[in-house]
Amino acid sequence: MNEPKAAVIMGSDSDFETMKGCIKHLKKFGIAPEVHVISAHRTPQKAEEFAKNARKNGFDVIIAAAGKAAHLAGVIAAYTTLPVIGVPIKSSTMDGLDSLLSIVQMPSGIPVATVAINGSENAGILAAQMLSLKYEQIEEKLVAFKEEMAQKVEEKDKKIALEAQNL
Amino acid sequence: MNEPKAAVIMGSDSDFETMKGCIKHLKKFGIAPEVHVISAHRTPQKAEEFAKNARKNGFDVIIAAAGKAAHLAGVIAAYTTLPVIGVPIKSSTMDGLDSLLSIVQMPSGIPVATVAINGSENAGILAAQMLSLKYEQIEEKLVAFKEEMAQKVEEKDKKIALEAQNL
Amino acid sequence: MNEPKAAVIMGSDSDFETMKGCIKHLKKFGIAPEVHVISAHRTPQKAEEFAKNARKNGFDVIIAAAGKAAHLAGVIAAYTTLPVIGVPIKSSTMDGLDSLLSIVQMPSGIPVATVAINGSENAGILAAQMLSLKYEQIEEKLVAFKEEMAQKVEEKDKKIALEAQNL
Amino acid sequence: MNEPKAAVIMGSDSDFETMKGCIKHLKKFGIAPEVHVISAHRTPQKAEEFAKNARKNGFDVIIAAAGKAAHLAGVIAAYTTLPVIGVPIKSSTMDGLDSLLSIVQMPSGIPVATVAINGSENAGILAAQMLSLKYEQIEEKLVAFKEEMAQKVEEKDKKIALEAQNL
Amino acid sequence: MNEPKAAVIMGSDSDFETMKGCIKHLKKFGIAPEVHVISAHRTPQKAEEFAKNARKNGFDVIIAAAGKAAHLAGVIAAYTTLPVIGVPIKSSTMDGLDSLLSIVQMPSGIPVATVAINGSENAGILAAQMLSLKYEQIEEKLVAFKEEMAQKVEEKDKKIALEAQNL
Amino acid sequence: MNEPKAAVIMGSDSDFETMKGCIKHLKKFGIAPEVHVISAHRTPQKAEEFAKNARKNGFDVIIAAAGKAAHLAGVIAAYTTLPVIGVPIKSSTMDGLDSLLSIVQMPSGIPVATVAINGSENAGILAAQMLSLKYEQIEEKLVAFKEEMAQKVEEKDKKIALEAQNL
Amino acid sequence: MNEPKAAVIMGSDSDFETMKGCIKHLKKFGIAPEVHVISAHRTPQKAEEFAKNARKNGFDVIIAAAGKAAHLAGVIAAYTTLPVIGVPIKSSTMDGLDSLLSIVQMPSGIPVATVAINGSENAGILAAQMLSLKYEQIEEKLVAFKEEMAQKVEEKDKKIALEAQNL
Amino acid sequence: MNEPKAAVIMGSDSDFETMKGCIKHLKKFGIAPEVHVISAHRTPQKAEEFAKNARKNGFDVIIAAAGKAAHLAGVIAAYTTLPVIGVPIKSSTMDGLDSLLSIVQMPSGIPVATVAINGSENAGILAAQMLSLKYEQIEEKLVAFKEEMAQKVEEKDKKIALEAQNL
Repeated sequence: MNEPKAAVIMGSDSDFETMKGCIKHLKKFGIAPEVHVISAHRTPQKAEEFAKNARKNGFDVIIAAAGKAAHLAGVIAAYTTLPVIGVPIKSSTMDGLDSLLSIVQMPSGIPVATVAINGSENAGILAAQMLSLKYEQIEEKLVAFKEEMAQKVEEKDKKIALEAQNL
Repeated sequence: MNEPKAAVIMGSDSDFETMKGCIKHLKKFGIAPEVHVISAHRTPQKAEEFAKNARKNGFDVIIAAAGKAAHLAGVIAAYTTLPVIGVPIKSSTMDGLDSLLSIVQMPSGIPVATVAINGSENAGILAAQMLSLKYEQIEEKLVAFKEEMAQKVEEKDKKIALEAQNL
Repeated sequence: MNEPKAAVIMGSDSDFETMKGCIKHLKKFGIAPEVHVISAHRTPQKAEEFAKNARKNGFDVIIAAAGKAAHLAGVIAAYTTLPVIGVPIKSSTMDGLDSLLSIVQMPSGIPVATVAINGSENAGILAAQMLSLKYEQIEEKLVAFKEEMAQKVEEKDKKIALEAQNL
Repeated sequence: MNEPKAAVIMGSDSDFETMKGCIKHLKKFGIAPEVHVISAHRTPQKAEEFAKNARKNGFDVIIAAAGKAAHLAGVIAAYTTLPVIGVPIKSSTMDGLDSLLSIVQMPSGIPVATVAINGSENAGILAAQMLSLKYEQIEEKLVAFKEEMAQKVEEKDKKIALEAQNL
Repeated sequence: MNEPKAAVIMGSDSDFETMKGCIKHLKKFGIAPEVHVISAHRTPQKAEEFAKNARKNGFDVIIAAAGKAAHLAGVIAAYTTLPVIGVPIKSSTMDGLDSLLSIVQMPSGIPVATVAINGSENAGILAAQMLSLKYEQIEEKLVAFKEEMAQKVEEKDKKIALEAQNL
Repeated sequence: MNEPKAAVIMGSDSDFETMKGCIKHLKKFGIAPEVHVISAHRTPQKAEEFAKNARKNGFDVIIAAAGKAAHLAGVIAAYTTLPVIGVPIKSSTMDGLDSLLSIVQMPSGIPVATVAINGSENAGILAAQMLSLKYEQIEEKLVAFKEEMAQKVEEKDKKIALEAQNL
Repeated sequence: MNEPKAAVIMGSDSDFETMKGCIKHLKKFGIAPEVHVISAHRTPQKAEEFAKNARKNGFDVIIAAAGKAAHLAGVIAAYTTLPVIGVPIKSSTMDGLDSLLSIVQMPSGIPVATVAINGSENAGILAAQMLSLKYEQIEEKLVAFKEEMAQKVEEKDKKIALEAQNL
Repeated sequence: MNEPKAAVIMGSDSDFETMKGCIKHLKKFGIAPEVHVISAHRTPQKAEEFAKNARKNGFDVIIAAAGKAAHLAGVIAAYTTLPVIGVPIKSSTMDGLDSLLSIVQMPSGIPVATVAINGSENAGILAAQMLSLKYEQIEEKLVAFKEEMAQKVEEKDKKIALEAQNL
């Protein structure tokens, strides 16, 4: 029946490059992403509409990425009871600290699940972890993904151990 | 005819103590303040309604105070063309830096006129300066206020100069 | 059948006072909390065991709170595919910034859903949002909770608006 | 009769590149900008003269941009009752934090309306919002500007949504 | 003939408690302090007058203490060729970082000799070091002061070494 | 034969309260501490003498604690080839960040083994770990200490798990 | 008999470039380095195994380098009584502050000997200082190294003093 | 008789590029600079010798530049009663904040006159201001320098005002 479905919202089209990792990871876990540019400040009405109807429209989770005074995730969270994942985007000043604090320091009552600055891939993986509660097939994919990551580290370990001997 | 009128919005009733200085200064300059607790996250609809209708309802300026991930001023600014003054409130962690960055680092297109952390009085005075463009009587009051401040510094100067001799 | 079930792990018993808000909110949303003191550094084996078996043991989500070099959430996340929520605890130095960065800045592959510094209540609410994907009864409670919050703000608004007139 | 008129003061000619956005936005809203390089530290007398006479000389608002220990906006504000907008310029060290704090953390009595680090365009827009209280034609332009911004976001939304499908 | 003479200027009478250490140390080194409350923002004209005439009025050095957006030292330095010592005062927010950056990050051309946050005593000692170039008697006092400090550390060393044995 | 021996140096007697934990832990691991107040700035000659002769005088490690511009550990390290452990002491401003950076950011060639801000106990334990390379009996004590710590966490776990049920 | 032996563990192969200086310095002091890529989060089991058996496997010290939420050193330290040296790696955001705080701010009981951000060479030298307690030949090498460094500074002094005359 | 004489000490030859501005400004004010590379950590004995004998050797002031855990200025100041000017050098991490705090946050008793991060030119000018107390000819040069700076700003003002009209 129900298909796992995630929204990926970004405050500016300049965030798209960073958010590609998120979108690819969602697809990897079999989660259909719907991607939008919606600004909390320039198209506030649209942000509201989207958030209000997100659960009804079949979304399981909303991922919101923004930089600077990054209000997008908080504004979305105000209008939905779905879990909202916030991705602080590093902008040209303050090294992403402004984005991080604007997203993570939410007041009591309206949480945003915040990942690292530019932590686009982790936003996708976190969404998969959340959705694995509801969609059993995702859990298997997560287990495989963890094994694959470990494998890659093992390979790098062998390569670096060798290179180090020749220093 | 038109009376100078300012809205003072705060995200939480715990901000009221800090915002009293703002309200008193508005009254000092003959600006009628309408005071509200409106949360960008808990009562987003009300924030939207208030901001959308603020100019029509006779407001000249909106002062918005909030702490932590302080989105209130930005959310208000998204829905109005009135000048919005943001007051970052120092909360129990991060010494107000989170509030400051969440308010001041607004993206291009939607400015918020930010004052100091807990700079409640200055929000009132800045509002008066803005309104002095439209209401001439406020300018005189600002000039008198500046003189009064200088006078007080002079008095303190005399007192401290004396005390210092006895150290 | 299945009952919603959350683990609340803290790195030190001194975090308990802060984490009470989380536990109470989980109960409010009908989620049974199992509470533990497990240290990533002092009882690492136990952390590993707990995380490895968490899904099998019926947990839907793990909430991990820690201060300073707060590794607990990351260590837990390394051993499970369940979503892990991290609560940075403010300690006696650095105002919680160390805890926040140690939790939120996770490398790609192992996300931790981070809430505000001392954001204990929001950890509980975020868990409820995640579990609402699987347990339908929680969604209703979240909707009611949002309304209740809005109501309280409305009441405070009336009270403060009145008090402000008498300044 | 009266024409809307703004001063754009910068502490160094190296700030000019950043401040072009401000100047263009003032013109867009029909506000005549008078642009100067005046240093609070190298030409303090000129800063004083300019600020003292600004209202008399027909200015409605002063925008002051400076970097590092950015005293210019505060020094200007000390000598006028006009609203002063401060633009913190990012310099080669401290990522603009020094400029921001030097401008925004003004003591009670002398506010500076601070915008984001390098927030040049927003300084122009904020000036327009302030002047819309006095000059009715500016309000219409602000409304149109908001619509135009929303439109652009909509276009980007369509473009990115499409691109995302092909990832 | 000439007597060593220092000015101690503070932006607010609330800085006086902190600056007592400075005044006492100046006296200890035989430097006559003239103490004033002068605000860069509330009494800018007086700051200018004082600075412009300081050398002519027999001052050898000016010590300026201020908090928050601490412009006082920079404004004084703009109007004199005397060395200016800046003392960043810790205020109620930002732990003194705002004061420090506002004082120390002066642009090229107008230096301020900055001491530690609340480094009042060191401002007095630094003034004595500067004046020792001109007044030979101060050098001897500085040598004696250094010896006295070392002596005190020796005494504390003995006391603590003993106490530590009984732990 | 040789007895394990550590020096505990602090820049000020006000650091003693914090350093008691270090001294107690050294004793716990059978390491004789020699405790001194030596200032890098007020008694630099003594710091030099102490460091130069430390290895010859039978010390295995030097622990140096200081606050603010905490140069003590670095100055000691400049004059010895023994490992030097630095303890950043939190002072009244900057929350210990100044002490931490002044100790940890040592240039290439002269390392200081830095522990947490006020990490006095860990300085003692780290010394024990270093000395366990040379003195076998210390290793056993470290193993027992680790078990003891785990035990205590287990006890707290039981206590808190119980208390949590009654919330 | 026993040969001095150090482990150099890094959380990612991207840290290898930075860690080359560490490896070279270990070799310079006659310490055999075994180099590995082991991730606290992607291969936690391997980190545990490695740390648990490190002393038994003849290691004298473990050097752990990682960036962002850098848990590797702490996780290693949880499983061994050997001294653990932590190297905070600067990543693409937060300028290394996140790595530094995640490594240095360890809770009481489990110290990590932290060096500067990217302080790879110092990690090797610190390891040599620790091992000089057990292996006498290393002390001589450290003394020679200190002299060599001083020599180089002397040469640079001569060169720069000359160049400066021609400015 | 006596000639004005300043020492310019830097912790590393890599600081030379930044310190050229200082050396040139000293020469501009007729102060003979003696330039050295002396490391507080690699050649501590030389730093001590230099500082101890500086006054006797005819120096009026010592300028010390260093980066990271920048102890040089403090170490010099410990051994002399001459005024010491500290120049925090921005290094590859922490954007100069570590250097600034390591230099400016000196404990009571041993001040360092700190200028801006990379504030090389200001160190030279500050030295000239200090020496103007003793050498009258320098005062005239400082007055001329101030006028020259003002002149340059005036020229830039004209140029930018013109360019701005054509935007």
